[in-house]
Amino acid sequence: MIVLNVTFLGTGAGLPSKYRNVSSIALDLSQEIGETWLFDCGEATQHQILHTSIKPRKITKIFITHMHGDHIFGLPGLLSSRSFQDGTTPVKIYGPIGIRSFVENSLRLSSTNLSYRLSFIEVTDGYAEQLEGFNLKVKKLEHGIDSFGYRLTEHDRLGKLNVNQLKNDGIPPGPIYKVIKEQPTTKLDNGEVVNRDDYLGPPIKGRRISVMGDTRNPYQFKDFVSNSDLLIHEATFKHEDKELANRFYHSTTIEAAQLAKESRVKQLILTHLSARYDKTGIDLLNDEAQAIFKSTTIAEDLLEIDI
Amino acid sequence: MIVLNVTFLGTGAGLPSKYRNVSSIALDLSQEIGETWLFDCGEATQHQILHTSIKPRKITKIFITHMHGDHIFGLPGLLSSRSFQDGTTPVKIYGPIGIRSFVENSLRLSSTNLSYRLSFIEVTDGYAEQLEGFNLKVKKLEHGIDSFGYRLTEHDRLGKLNVNQLKNDGIPPGPIYKVIKEQPTTKLDNGEVVNRDDYLGPPIKGRRISVMGDTRNPYQFKDFVSNSDLLIHEATFKHEDKELANRFYHSTTIEAAQLAKESRVKQLILTHLSARYDKTGIDLLNDEAQAIFKSTTIAEDLLEIDI
Repeated sequence: MIVLNVTFLGTGAGLPSKYRNVSSIALDLSQEIGETWLFDCGEATQHQILHTSIKPRKITKIFITHMHGDHIFGLPGLLSSRSFQDGTTPVKIYGPIGIRSFVENSLRLSSTNLSYRLSFIEVTDGYAEQLEGFNLKVKKLEHGIDSFGYRLTEHDRLGKLNVNQLKNDGIPPGPIYKVIKEQPTTKLDNGEVVNRDDYLGPPIKGRRISVMGDTRNPYQFKDFVSNSDLLIHEATFKHEDKELANRFYHSTTIEAAQLAKESRVKQLILTHLSARYDKTGIDLLNDEAQAIFKSTTIAEDLLEIDI
Repeated sequence: MIVLNVTFLGTGAGLPSKYRNVSSIALDLSQEIGETWLFDCGEATQHQILHTSIKPRKITKIFITHMHGDHIFGLPGLLSSRSFQDGTTPVKIYGPIGIRSFVENSLRLSSTNLSYRLSFIEVTDGYAEQLEGFNLKVKKLEHGIDSFGYRLTEHDRLGKLNVNQLKNDGIPPGPIYKVIKEQPTTKLDNGEVVNRDDYLGPPIKGRRISVMGDTRNPYQFKDFVSNSDLLIHEATFKHEDKELANRFYHSTTIEAAQLAKESRVKQLILTHLSARYDKTGIDLLNDEAQAIFKSTTIAEDLLEIDI
């Protein structure tokens, strides 16, 4: 199976520290469709990218969860540098109302003329689109200002070709097997017509990745993230600081872990961590989330996950 | 004399590299007036500040040379973080027309409510203002879009008190000497009136710092930068690439060095260096500038200069 690689470019909340940059996540689809998609683009995302194998000119879609500065202030710089670095393919930005104005005003006032086409989709709750290889679904969260979760569900793939059965039916192995898999019916040299469906195993289910923006009370989004292979969720605070989390429209470790558990996700990554927690604090966050949902990882900058 | 400290926060041109961030320079006036002033604020200026002793809440003035992204895209983030970090004193931003719209639009769309007052001066050629401790003068340069040089001339200071002469005239040393220096006339206990001017040496000339924005043909600004103690100038290209420099409205090493030589500056720092030059290339830039003007330094990120 083709590997989907996720790189955490920034895992801190609110403002950058020496150890955690502000939010951005890259989904590398280079094996799948030769592109990279970004979720959020806090300031210095392009600087973080310098320490990875990501190529800005390969970034074709950027999904912005919400308009707070720590999620968008890196956009004008990344888009400009992509142009400097010979980016020519179009870029599409998804985000709340206002994202177009922010980007267009910044580029216009800085006299930046991009070498590629830039378009925008200002999303609302329930927005859905068929993307290349994935279905996109958008969910409005609870964060004081509009904040969204993005769910990508990979298209199901054809099942495996039953090679033994083909052989048994007198069709010898060769390039013809590839042809048979690629089209519904194939006419053989002997005139016989082969129906692909007669030789396919069950379809291979597409993977699901849910990237949630800042939110409080995440449990209400159980259906939206259900059965995700990878759920990326904020955990700005440890559970003891639940009051703070609620006041500032954020989630705690345990809230995110409970969501993961109840919605049967395979793997939970927690990010957007407050700079108030030092190494020991982060270990505690990890422990309290894992006590609820074992397959939890606390993200750090430049962490890579393959699914 | 009170030390003026200059820190180069970003010394690259156009886009960030692993080794040089985009433009920003800090002038630390903490000994003088307890403030720090910035020149330009490229993306990730606040990240660079994390590696210095500069405190964002102490930054009170920001001078923007021009509106290209590598000089302004760090502003919204720095201003937001200053608010997060308990900045309460007002900030004044000087820059070309458009700087107010860029900052205000970015802050509004990101729902950023600053904890301090922000004001703007959109400068034009010849703008002048008396600032605390310094006279500011602004010069329009030659860069395709409006680009400005900022010249700060420190107010002259009172000359030294001639202690020997005071003693000779029968005024014994003590706290009274400080009082005599602080006011034009002082009445002594014996009724005698002392005129300060009778006991002062020649005034101590204020220092001059000129920070020039991106420009081509810098020689025309000879009068503006004359007698600077510190001239900070771009040298995007080596002199062999003069055609490129001219086409993109930039200066070469030798052009900047000639300006420094002819305008009798004390010290020249070259910055805004193209990422095309590796270590060896930078050494060459240094050599060709020093051949013209000995007191030249090529800036690197986090370089500090005391004057």
